[in-house]
Amino acid sequence: MEDVRPAASLRAPLRLPHKALMGAGPANAPPRVLHASAQPLVGHLHAEALRVMDDIKDGLRYAFQTTNPVTLCLSCAGHGGMEASLTNLLEPGDVAVVAVNGHWGARASDMVTRHGSRVVKLEAPLGQPVTLEAAEEAVSKHRPRLLFLVQAESSTSVLQPLEGFGPMCHKYGTLLVVDTVASLGGTPLWTDRWELDVVYTGSQKVLNAPPGLAPITFSPRAMQRITSRQKPCSVYYWDIMQLGDYWGCFGNPRKYHHTGPVSLFFALREALAILAAEGLTASLRRHAEAAARLHAGLQRLGAEFLVPDPRHRVPTLTAFSFPNVDLQAVARTAMTRHGVELSGGLGPTVGRILRIGLMGVNASEDAVDNVLSVLEDSIKNPILTNKL
Amino acid sequence: MEDVRPAASLRAPLRLPHKALMGAGPANAPPRVLHASAQPLVGHLHAEALRVMDDIKDGLRYAFQTTNPVTLCLSCAGHGGMEASLTNLLEPGDVAVVAVNGHWGARASDMVTRHGSRVVKLEAPLGQPVTLEAAEEAVSKHRPRLLFLVQAESSTSVLQPLEGFGPMCHKYGTLLVVDTVASLGGTPLWTDRWELDVVYTGSQKVLNAPPGLAPITFSPRAMQRITSRQKPCSVYYWDIMQLGDYWGCFGNPRKYHHTGPVSLFFALREALAILAAEGLTASLRRHAEAAARLHAGLQRLGAEFLVPDPRHRVPTLTAFSFPNVDLQAVARTAMTRHGVELSGGLGPTVGRILRIGLMGVNASEDAVDNVLSVLEDSIKNPILTNKL
Repeated sequence: MEDVRPAASLRAPLRLPHKALMGAGPANAPPRVLHASAQPLVGHLHAEALRVMDDIKDGLRYAFQTTNPVTLCLSCAGHGGMEASLTNLLEPGDVAVVAVNGHWGARASDMVTRHGSRVVKLEAPLGQPVTLEAAEEAVSKHRPRLLFLVQAESSTSVLQPLEGFGPMCHKYGTLLVVDTVASLGGTPLWTDRWELDVVYTGSQKVLNAPPGLAPITFSPRAMQRITSRQKPCSVYYWDIMQLGDYWGCFGNPRKYHHTGPVSLFFALREALAILAAEGLTASLRRHAEAAARLHAGLQRLGAEFLVPDPRHRVPTLTAFSFPNVDLQAVARTAMTRHGVELSGGLGPTVGRILRIGLMGVNASEDAVDNVLSVLEDSIKNPILTNKL
Repeated sequence: MEDVRPAASLRAPLRLPHKALMGAGPANAPPRVLHASAQPLVGHLHAEALRVMDDIKDGLRYAFQTTNPVTLCLSCAGHGGMEASLTNLLEPGDVAVVAVNGHWGARASDMVTRHGSRVVKLEAPLGQPVTLEAAEEAVSKHRPRLLFLVQAESSTSVLQPLEGFGPMCHKYGTLLVVDTVASLGGTPLWTDRWELDVVYTGSQKVLNAPPGLAPITFSPRAMQRITSRQKPCSVYYWDIMQLGDYWGCFGNPRKYHHTGPVSLFFALREALAILAAEGLTASLRRHAEAAARLHAGLQRLGAEFLVPDPRHRVPTLTAFSFPNVDLQAVARTAMTRHGVELSGGLGPTVGRILRIGLMGVNASEDAVDNVLSVLEDSIKNPILTNKL
């Protein structure tokens, strides 16, 4: 005798439209990646799954440009990458300096506080990166366990320069954590060359896999910190010592930590194979060219960029507005009439901007030209709310 | 100039075999579910995604047999369900009584300790459930914040009776948390009728979706505890107050918490539609019949059950051994020769048993007869290691 009955809406089969995901992400996934998602399941410790995980590790080391043995995926959203970075490196009472110039620095600060560590905010105006000088001042003063930076602050589309920050941090015994969720694969990022200690990203942006995985890499310096903790990581699910054994990073026999989302592994493996086939250098060039084309087009349309200095604009995502235009109506029109997603703002930029993403397959001349013409039409002939 | 080059193995496209996943899970996913995994991506806050999430909430309330408004999925493995339950209910210094009669109770104890709370272990011998009397003795003595039970202790295949535990706990102001990862949908479970406060499961077992989601439900009593915490949940990714707003459980406008794994949502939505179409009662009957058939067949083959009392055997998973048989060789033979997965032991039962799972589509006469004949062949004609 059932107490609760299923809802009527569950009777209909699932139907989904195809959209051009030209916002802040997820981006579109190419057919090869989607096809891989639907492969028959295998056990999470079967030889086939372990082989796929090994391929992913190789592909991620290529994407991150690192030889770090501890390079793997967390089975969660990019947010989990942020929390796992902080939770593995920090113990209660530790200090973290967090650069805050948009949504993501604020989120990281919240996580540090929840965890019982102390946060020092290193603020910069919206639309501007943190300077190396300001960072060194904060690091030399507070001698924090870590400095947290976001390469592509997706709420504003600011590109944070990273060169020089690693050696500066290491001078003071500080570790450098970098969020590359909205940038990896489309923006130059050299983990080893730049001495970055923890770098993480999300599967659903430039890499063009479905959301649900957070690739992450730990430098030997970061691992040294982790192995010398007083107590194990306070969150089992984020514990890199156990995850490293599941992913075979320490040379030990594989050990069950959790049941990995194998169908997402299949998809990400194919996405990384596509990146390897194109080549990282070519992918970076393609993203830079697409961004230049988009910026020129936006300028022609009279857009005002949120990031004034072109050198500080991330190629994968562009934030802008138009004076005296109802931006919400523009986004609604693009979606309703054209099936094209443009994102609004996020956190401190909600309601003030639009954001166009050029990530992976969407960083092409065709996609740029299409989104520009959709934008133009949506500005000229917006669908007003009262007409819906 | 790239410092690191991609591995050669990434050049080959992905190829995966089809296997019968008759172990402890993941189970096989039916074609409709796999097909849904490969649907084009949509944004995690698009109307289509929200509709899918609403369908999932309805389907989960049906599967859990609850009217709890706070019923949703965590974007992680079942392990995350365990940690989120504990982390949301406990604050540092709180006491949790954890039933330990296999792997999962031990894992939950570890999580409680990492979190800074105090664990009292309520131990029972391997192969036996915890009695209501023993539980009441511990709860009345320690007055814990919560009692943690596992309905299907998958390392031993013990079925934990749950009736009476809810009202007993509530007499002492204790909340009841139940792990149903290996049981939900195949074993009677009545969240509201039995007064269970937090119940979670995994997407990849009886529900037949890919791994990567942890469905979970919180009773009003559990929510009252959470809203009266001194401090917010120490882990952002597990914070049910924010997740509840992302899933639209509190009647507020949807709020971004993380990027949900939409392709896994599509798959789980279809898996729940399949359960709703069959009916929970019919599904439970089918699992019970398949288990009875399997148990009779195992008896004919001379198996010794790890759980002596048939009333304490969970229908979805059966642990057994054969005297003087190389169990590892049997599992290897089943996999290598027949493409059929049988699981070995886990935690305290490693090397001592085999486990056959009958979960979802695999709980059928055909599947049972097939696994029994594969088992018989693998015992009689094992592939020995030195022949590989």
